Amino acid sequence: MIKSRIAAIRKVMLEEKVDWLYVPSEDFHQSEYVRDYFKCREYLSGFTGSAGALLIGKNMAGLWTDGRYHIQAAKELKGTGIELFRVGQEGVKQILEYLLENVGSGDVVAFDGRVVNAKTASQLEMRLNYQGAVLKYDLDLVDRVWEDRPELLPHEEIYNLDYMYCGKSTTDKLADIRAYMESVGATCHVISTLEDIAWILNVRGNDIKNCPVVLSYLVITKDFAVWFTHEEDMQETVAVAMEKVGVVTTDYADLLKYLGNLPTNQRVLLDKSKVNFAIKKVLENRHIQLIDYPNPSLKMKAMKNEIEQKNLVDAHIKDGIAVTKFMYWLKNNIGKNPMTEISTAEYLESLRGMMLNYKGPSFDTISAYNENAAMMHYSATEESCATLKAEGMLLVDSGGHYLEGSTDITRTFVLGQVEDEWKKHFTLVVKGMLALSDAKFLYGCNGQNLDILARGPLWSEGLDYRCGTGHGVGYMLSVHEGPNGFRWKTVAERNDSGVFEEGMVTSNEPGVYIEGSHGIRIENELLCKEAFVNEYGRYMCFETLTLAPIDLDGIDTRYLNGEDIERLNRYHEKVYSELAEYLDEDEKSWLKEYTRKLI
Amino acid sequence: MIKSRIAAIRKVMLEEKVDWLYVPSEDFHQSEYVRDYFKCREYLSGFTGSAGALLIGKNMAGLWTDGRYHIQAAKELKGTGIELFRVGQEGVKQILEYLLENVGSGDVVAFDGRVVNAKTASQLEMRLNYQGAVLKYDLDLVDRVWEDRPELLPHEEIYNLDYMYCGKSTTDKLADIRAYMESVGATCHVISTLEDIAWILNVRGNDIKNCPVVLSYLVITKDFAVWFTHEEDMQETVAVAMEKVGVVTTDYADLLKYLGNLPTNQRVLLDKSKVNFAIKKVLENRHIQLIDYPNPSLKMKAMKNEIEQKNLVDAHIKDGIAVTKFMYWLKNNIGKNPMTEISTAEYLESLRGMMLNYKGPSFDTISAYNENAAMMHYSATEESCATLKAEGMLLVDSGGHYLEGSTDITRTFVLGQVEDEWKKHFTLVVKGMLALSDAKFLYGCNGQNLDILARGPLWSEGLDYRCGTGHGVGYMLSVHEGPNGFRWKTVAERNDSGVFEEGMVTSNEPGVYIEGSHGIRIENELLCKEAFVNEYGRYMCFETLTLAPIDLDGIDTRYLNGEDIERLNRYHEKVYSELAEYLDEDEKSWLKEYTRKLI
Repeated sequence: MIKSRIAAIRKVMLEEKVDWLYVPSEDFHQSEYVRDYFKCREYLSGFTGSAGALLIGKNMAGLWTDGRYHIQAAKELKGTGIELFRVGQEGVKQILEYLLENVGSGDVVAFDGRVVNAKTASQLEMRLNYQGAVLKYDLDLVDRVWEDRPELLPHEEIYNLDYMYCGKSTTDKLADIRAYMESVGATCHVISTLEDIAWILNVRGNDIKNCPVVLSYLVITKDFAVWFTHEEDMQETVAVAMEKVGVVTTDYADLLKYLGNLPTNQRVLLDKSKVNFAIKKVLENRHIQLIDYPNPSLKMKAMKNEIEQKNLVDAHIKDGIAVTKFMYWLKNNIGKNPMTEISTAEYLESLRGMMLNYKGPSFDTISAYNENAAMMHYSATEESCATLKAEGMLLVDSGGHYLEGSTDITRTFVLGQVEDEWKKHFTLVVKGMLALSDAKFLYGCNGQNLDILARGPLWSEGLDYRCGTGHGVGYMLSVHEGPNGFRWKTVAERNDSGVFEEGMVTSNEPGVYIEGSHGIRIENELLCKEAFVNEYGRYMCFETLTLAPIDLDGIDTRYLNGEDIERLNRYHEKVYSELAEYLDEDEKSWLKEYTRKLI
Repeated sequence: MIKSRIAAIRKVMLEEKVDWLYVPSEDFHQSEYVRDYFKCREYLSGFTGSAGALLIGKNMAGLWTDGRYHIQAAKELKGTGIELFRVGQEGVKQILEYLLENVGSGDVVAFDGRVVNAKTASQLEMRLNYQGAVLKYDLDLVDRVWEDRPELLPHEEIYNLDYMYCGKSTTDKLADIRAYMESVGATCHVISTLEDIAWILNVRGNDIKNCPVVLSYLVITKDFAVWFTHEEDMQETVAVAMEKVGVVTTDYADLLKYLGNLPTNQRVLLDKSKVNFAIKKVLENRHIQLIDYPNPSLKMKAMKNEIEQKNLVDAHIKDGIAVTKFMYWLKNNIGKNPMTEISTAEYLESLRGMMLNYKGPSFDTISAYNENAAMMHYSATEESCATLKAEGMLLVDSGGHYLEGSTDITRTFVLGQVEDEWKKHFTLVVKGMLALSDAKFLYGCNGQNLDILARGPLWSEGLDYRCGTGHGVGYMLSVHEGPNGFRWKTVAERNDSGVFEEGMVTSNEPGVYIEGSHGIRIENELLCKEAFVNEYGRYMCFETLTLAPIDLDGIDTRYLNGEDIERLNRYHEKVYSELAEYLDEDEKSWLKEYTRKLI
């Protein structure tokens, strides 16, 4: 099937005189997850992972993907004739480097300019031109061969996020953005990132799985704004609200036409690493001046306002009740009733579902038993799904969207007998997680300064986790957002090394992953606050939002010092005092025991 | 006197039609400390601090200096008519910003192009030209009015640093540098930094106070090198050594002439932030291509080789003996025999002087009692010198040059009764210092990643020190060298945020400074080593070089956890086992007590 699809696309390439076709995994908005409509790479290659890109030449077809997917991709590509390029392995070039090395003078390279960001595509264009190759970016070749392609536009309702939840009016947000535009000399601002748009307009939808955004573009000028979306799904109240704040709504498909008619004296603020190449091209072709900065809403959105902060506390109480009830159930039923990775995930989801204002999971739950948990991005399938026994450990990484905010929590539960080594790993992870949570630091620090607090206890024992320690978390939006994060080495394209500002929420999730054996991760979310100001400056600290016991059955106090134990006790005291009233008597007395003071 | 000097220089300015004269504190080599010949700013203004710059216009004369010198400068400038600009205070512009704001179109600005680095001067030149002003950089106007100006060239002997001390031949060093030159396409390399030159040529001198370098320039080509220096002071063995390795020696004054005759097809590697503007200009005027990178010798020099590392251990044993004997003497004589800040510093110097291969102090000793120690860069004068009593604390920051390497150590000694608060501060400083010393981390970390280990315990208590935690230390060279250091916020011009490499030596010196009360700093030097390599990567760690007791009279164990105490005990065990054999019986039994295990 894949072979015939590749043959079909090669035929179209021949018709269009295209020598190389580049098919990435992105949508028009550089979203983290995409609607089925955008899954061209998956359609052509059969590879279903979330990250990866396909390159089709006359005599080659290759798929590039990272370490998370090497095994899966090898399996899925078998028999397709598509070569697997394992990104991250020594000697393996990145896909565009490979392309540039193999492209001949006069060759025609094509991709859909709407699914590649302007920054990457511009660099590629420059280098291709330099090599005498030609770039075509206005063709969607896959569309010609994909017969039963899903619909582009969703039919999901678009609703307002009320002031009591969002805490700041669109009028005020637009005013802040316009003030920023003026400060950088912009007369117009093009936004394509769906989270920014939802935040600015105080609207939410259901257009991307696990992320309550609305497929749309937004153009802000000095006096008005234009929102390109699927109007027909707007609740009446949204239309009213938009009109009130001077936002004109129109068709999603009209953006490029609109930009093509902008007066040429405009100075357009946009983030080239976020808007797609087609947007940049339509402006560039008319010699409109572009001002390339991150969207100002990125940082504004990350700094949760007071109402959002208050709501987040409530969201985490609800989430904590669900997770704590889950833990009680798990601990009391393991070995007695049959359980699997998937069934436990479903049970947890059902507990969240009972909470008021719950809008669904904020990402696909990872429920991973023993060696499965060593795969950082494991997702149980019918095929892989492990049955749980009263031994070993179960890692559950899950989260929910509530009108009061989004959550992301990981707990690793001890299901019975575990080796001392596992407990050591568990304890070191907790030690680091708590040390970072307890950081007090001068304003100006970013994740690079603080990362070692979480990672240090593992490094000291020759362990590590091959990822950042944490990421920014949105409010009823994506659970991965910049510009904050914890990471010891800057990764430019991650944009997560921003200075910690009051109101930012960041996950704190160190872990240990031993291939073929076990995986441990403990994750709390941290709200950045001002601690105090004195002659040395402004001190910042974190308030832990997440409320659920850290399984004391995994703790070996030999690996904790007095400070560590005090931190753990303080956290558990808070968990009990915040959650106890929402639990029944059995759960409550169980929680008392599982939040007991260690000495 | 100053007024008449200013008048004299204004007369010369008038003759030369110069409207503004900029007089910085640097020498031709951007050295940290300079010979008296270069103290033009001091001569003209009377301000004796080590940092600051003077600007003389037709109607104004101003001196800019930083917070360390605000009080001293105000005193020294009194009655001179020179206005003091307190750098660091709000609203105070930097000197060159001030100049640019006040310079008129057609104005002539002058400075000696040899005492301003090429990077700064080039930016200034561009902005002056843009404003219609003219830059003259080939005048040394101060020389015309400074009658008894000290000699430019030293008459200090130049000697070889033997292989048993330097551990790598000049031939090998030149080969490494030439390989680097080739990798960046350079045919020629101009070096003006004195430490780099001394390291490359394995020579030492005594041309700058506290820094055993040789005033000189070095030009390296593919086949030979030219060393511009004061030949007449070379030991015969140096001349022989230079000839052997293809280094031609010639007069210090000949550099610019030599560069003026370079074939124009040369591609010259130089560090624009290090070479002076006159060098850049002579090359630029002939359209010679410049390749602007840090000197490759900077990093090579910082990574001490195995012989240097072995020697450094010996140097620190000698230094530790001196400091430990000093501490014994101090503790046993305080309150009995009269002592002052200066007399104790002199006594310590006399102890170092007894050590084999001791070549002198590596910087001016800071001996500061109680509130004097709160001034981070305090230097006792006859006037300020405090008499010590059997109470409070004495901070002594000192170091020496030995053929086996340079040292830099700070200890704060408890002389008798001190408040609990002081002990708390002392203990927190020790806690942080030991935590950083004990770091184990993946290769790739720099000072920004690790700084919080030292600073965290102070931040947690709302304290801080307003400087980096530590700096790179040279080998029989400057005690401040890049590219390594500990600092939480990057300061671009410091060039101390390099990745830690095996063999780098860095000081670790957190502190607490309470104005008008007390100052505490504890400083050990750390040698970076590879700890081990496993599946996660290459782990690095530090070996502590410095060997001297940390005064247990200052420790309050309530502020230490079990890990902290273990670290302190481990360190003291090492101090005792390394030093005991060199002490007499009284000192030894005293040291046993002062390195006792805490519980």
